[in-house]
Amino acid sequence: MLEALKQQVLEANLELPKHGLVTFTWGNVSGIDRESGLFVIKPSGVPYEELKAEDMVVVDLEGNVVEGKLRPSSDTPTHMVLYRSFPDIGGVVHTHSPWGTSWAQAGKALPAYGTTHADYFYGEIPVTRPMTREEIEGAYELETGNVIVERFADIDPNQVPGVLVHAHAPFVWGKDAHNAVHNAVVLEEVAKIAARMLMLNPEAAPMDQTLLDRHFLRKHGAKAYYGQK
Amino acid sequence: MLEALKQQVLEANLELPKHGLVTFTWGNVSGIDRESGLFVIKPSGVPYEELKAEDMVVVDLEGNVVEGKLRPSSDTPTHMVLYRSFPDIGGVVHTHSPWGTSWAQAGKALPAYGTTHADYFYGEIPVTRPMTREEIEGAYELETGNVIVERFADIDPNQVPGVLVHAHAPFVWGKDAHNAVHNAVVLEEVAKIAARMLMLNPEAAPMDQTLLDRHFLRKHGAKAYYGQK
Amino acid sequence: MLEALKQQVLEANLELPKHGLVTFTWGNVSGIDRESGLFVIKPSGVPYEELKAEDMVVVDLEGNVVEGKLRPSSDTPTHMVLYRSFPDIGGVVHTHSPWGTSWAQAGKALPAYGTTHADYFYGEIPVTRPMTREEIEGAYELETGNVIVERFADIDPNQVPGVLVHAHAPFVWGKDAHNAVHNAVVLEEVAKIAARMLMLNPEAAPMDQTLLDRHFLRKHGAKAYYGQK
Amino acid sequence: MLEALKQQVLEANLELPKHGLVTFTWGNVSGIDRESGLFVIKPSGVPYEELKAEDMVVVDLEGNVVEGKLRPSSDTPTHMVLYRSFPDIGGVVHTHSPWGTSWAQAGKALPAYGTTHADYFYGEIPVTRPMTREEIEGAYELETGNVIVERFADIDPNQVPGVLVHAHAPFVWGKDAHNAVHNAVVLEEVAKIAARMLMLNPEAAPMDQTLLDRHFLRKHGAKAYYGQK
Repeated sequence: MLEALKQQVLEANLELPKHGLVTFTWGNVSGIDRESGLFVIKPSGVPYEELKAEDMVVVDLEGNVVEGKLRPSSDTPTHMVLYRSFPDIGGVVHTHSPWGTSWAQAGKALPAYGTTHADYFYGEIPVTRPMTREEIEGAYELETGNVIVERFADIDPNQVPGVLVHAHAPFVWGKDAHNAVHNAVVLEEVAKIAARMLMLNPEAAPMDQTLLDRHFLRKHGAKAYYGQK
Repeated sequence: MLEALKQQVLEANLELPKHGLVTFTWGNVSGIDRESGLFVIKPSGVPYEELKAEDMVVVDLEGNVVEGKLRPSSDTPTHMVLYRSFPDIGGVVHTHSPWGTSWAQAGKALPAYGTTHADYFYGEIPVTRPMTREEIEGAYELETGNVIVERFADIDPNQVPGVLVHAHAPFVWGKDAHNAVHNAVVLEEVAKIAARMLMLNPEAAPMDQTLLDRHFLRKHGAKAYYGQK
Repeated sequence: MLEALKQQVLEANLELPKHGLVTFTWGNVSGIDRESGLFVIKPSGVPYEELKAEDMVVVDLEGNVVEGKLRPSSDTPTHMVLYRSFPDIGGVVHTHSPWGTSWAQAGKALPAYGTTHADYFYGEIPVTRPMTREEIEGAYELETGNVIVERFADIDPNQVPGVLVHAHAPFVWGKDAHNAVHNAVVLEEVAKIAARMLMLNPEAAPMDQTLLDRHFLRKHGAKAYYGQK
Repeated sequence: MLEALKQQVLEANLELPKHGLVTFTWGNVSGIDRESGLFVIKPSGVPYEELKAEDMVVVDLEGNVVEGKLRPSSDTPTHMVLYRSFPDIGGVVHTHSPWGTSWAQAGKALPAYGTTHADYFYGEIPVTRPMTREEIEGAYELETGNVIVERFADIDPNQVPGVLVHAHAPFVWGKDAHNAVHNAVVLEEVAKIAARMLMLNPEAAPMDQTLLDRHFLRKHGAKAYYGQK
C-alpha cells in the first residue's frame, strides 16, 4: 500500500544525513497521500543506513497505525496535527539541525535578513511560545503540533514553511516530503548565515520589505521567473 | 558555437559545489568571448549534477539569448552589466557562499586585514548601497549590476575583483570563468578569517598599506615573483 | 582472552575519527567485563588507522596490565577510577573533541538548554574543580579520576554520563564502549549548539524542568517509548 | 640528490590539504639535511595535486638553488633564516590555516589555555611585532624570518615550535618536515578551541603552570611516558 509514497519518504529521509542535518537518528520525514488521508513516516529510532522502504509506517489522520511492523516516529502526533491544520502541505520534516536548534534554544524568531531567506520564506521564521506544564505532561507530541498551529494563526504556512519549536528544534514542511527536506536545508543555511551576521553587526535590521517581496515572488506564485518553464 | 567556452564555463560552474560555495542551485558562473561580444552562462535552476556543456546558454551584451534551449540564469542581466562596464574581465560568478553572505547581510565592507586578502584584493571588498524601491521593482537584476558599477566609480575592478551586494551576496569576477571562481573561493576564505578575527579583537585595524602593497604586487603586475615564470 | 570485548573496544575506538571527535591519537575508549573485573583499553599513542584488536591491552581494577604487548593509554588510571566508582557503567571514552574542550577550558558547566541535551543528559554536564598542585604532581591521571568522582557526589552517573575536566577535555561513559562513544558524540553536539545559542542570546536560561523530565524519561527508564520494542 | 628527503618533503606537503590546512597553493613545507646544510622545499605556486618528488627544489643556507628546474617557494628566505637560527629543527611549514590566521591578523599571541595546547607547546604561541616599512620594502621574506627569530630571543624554539606572524599567518617547525606539519595541525586545532573558549568566557585565564609542566613533560623530555617505548 502506498508503495510509491513509501519509496519517496524513504529517499527524503536519506537526504537528511546527506545534507548533514542529522546526527544518529535525530530526524524524521513524512509524506501524505491526501486522497486517502494516510501519511507515511519513518519508524522510531532506526538508523538511516538500515532504513528500507518496507520499514515505513502508514498512519491515518487520527494517529492510528494502518500498516507497518515497526513503531512510527515518536513525533508522529506532531506531523499529524500539521497535516490536519495545514491542508496544502504534503510533507513534514523534523530535525535537530545544529544552527536551527541554536536559534530554537535561544527562543528567538529568525528574521528575514537577506535574499537567501527571502527566496524561500516570506518573512521571519517564527518561534513557538514555551509549552505549559500541562501540555508537556499531557499528550506532549500532539501539543507540540498545537503550539505550532497556534503560532501560525496569522501566518500562511505555504509562505513560511517552517517554525522553531521553543527549546527544541525546527519543524519544516513543503509540498511533498522531498520539498520539505529542501526547505529544512534552507532553514539551516539561513540560520547559520544570520547568526554569523549578528556577530559582525549586532544592530542589523531585517531586510527591506520591497526586496523581500521581489525575491519571494520571483521564485513563487503566478509571476515566478526563476528556473525552467 | 563557442564550444570551448561552454566547456570552460561548465567546468567553472562545477567547481562551485566542489569548493563548498553553493547549496542547491544558488550560484552561477559565466564567461565571455570578447571578440564576438557573446557570453556563456549557466541555465536557471538546473542542478549541478545534471549540468552539461550543451545546456549552457549564449547571450549577447544586450541580453538576448543567441543560442540555447534553456532559460539563462535569472541573474543574467547583472552579469551583462558587469561585462559591459568592466572591459577587462572575462568571467563572472555569483554565489550565496555563507561567510560572504553574512558580510553582505551585515551591510559591511570587508577591509583588508591580512596578507591572505592582500594576495588577491588590493584593498577592501566594498558593499553596495541599499537599492531603492524603484530599482527593486523595476529591472531588478539589471539594476543590481548598476549599483555594483556605481560603487566601483573610484575602484579598479581589476584590482578588487569582487563586491558584496547589500542584503544579498557576493558577485566576483576575474580574467576568465575559472579565475572568477578562484577569486570567489578567496573572498569566502577571507570573509571567514576576518569575521573570526573580529571575534578575537573587535578593535582590529586594517593592515598596513605598505604590507598590502607588497603582497598584492608580488603576485600581480609587472614585478610579480610568485609562482613559476 | 576477552576477544569479543577487544573487538568491541577496537570498533568503538574507530568510531572516534569517523565522528570527527579526534585529531591524531587524542582519544581513547575502554570497555569492562564486570564478571572478571578486567577492562580492555586502547594502547598509548598508536594511530587509529593501524589499530588492531590484538593491540588492545587488558588491565585489572588495580591498574595492572594482565595481557598485551603494548603500553596502555596514559589515561588508564582515570578509566580505572571511573569503573571502580561507577559500578553500572560498562565503557569509558576520553577525547579532546573541540567544542567540549572549549567548554572545559572555559571552566564552565554545560547547562541543559534544550531537548537535544535532555534526550541524553538529565541535567547540566558538570565541570570539575581545578586540580591542586599536589594532585597534578602526584598520580595525576588517577587524581583526574578522583576529581571526577568527587564532582559526582550528588549526581547519578547513569543519568549524567559525562563530565568536563577543568582546563582539559571531556570524559564520557555509557553502558558499554559503543554507548560511551555515542554519548561523547552527543556531548560534542550539544556543546556546539549551546555555544552558538549563547552567541545569539547571552541571557538564555536553562530549559524548563518539566520539559527536561519529559525528554529524558521518554528515552530512558521504565516508561521509555522512543525507538523499537 | 637527497632523494629520500625530497620524498619526505613531498609527503609532508601533501598532508597539508589532507588536514584541511590549505586552500589552493597557500602553504609550503621544507625539510633540511643538516649534514650537507641543504634543504628541500616546495616549488612556488604549483597545485598540490600535480606535485611530484622531482619538483622539489634543493636550496643551500645562503638561499642559492642547488638543484631543481622550478622556482622555490617565495617564502624560501623565511625558511632559510629559521634553519640558520634554530639549529635543532629539521622541518618548517607555512600555511594560512584559517583559525591560526585569524589570531595572526588579530595581532594576539595564543596563550596556553588547556592541556591540548600543553601537550605540544610549552607556553603561549607568540605573535611577531608589526614589520617596519623598511623591512617590508626590503628583503621582505628574509626579514619575516628575522622578526620571528627576534621574537624567540627568550623562547626556546624546541619547546614552542611555532609563531604567528603579525597580519599574516603561522610558521611552524619540528624535528623533521612531517613533525612540523603535525605541529601545524595542532596549532590550528588549539587556535580554534581557544577562540571558541573566549566566546564562552572572555575572562578566561591561561592554564595553571603546574598543569602545563605536567602535560608538556609527560610527552616530551627525558621522563616522557606517553606513547610506546
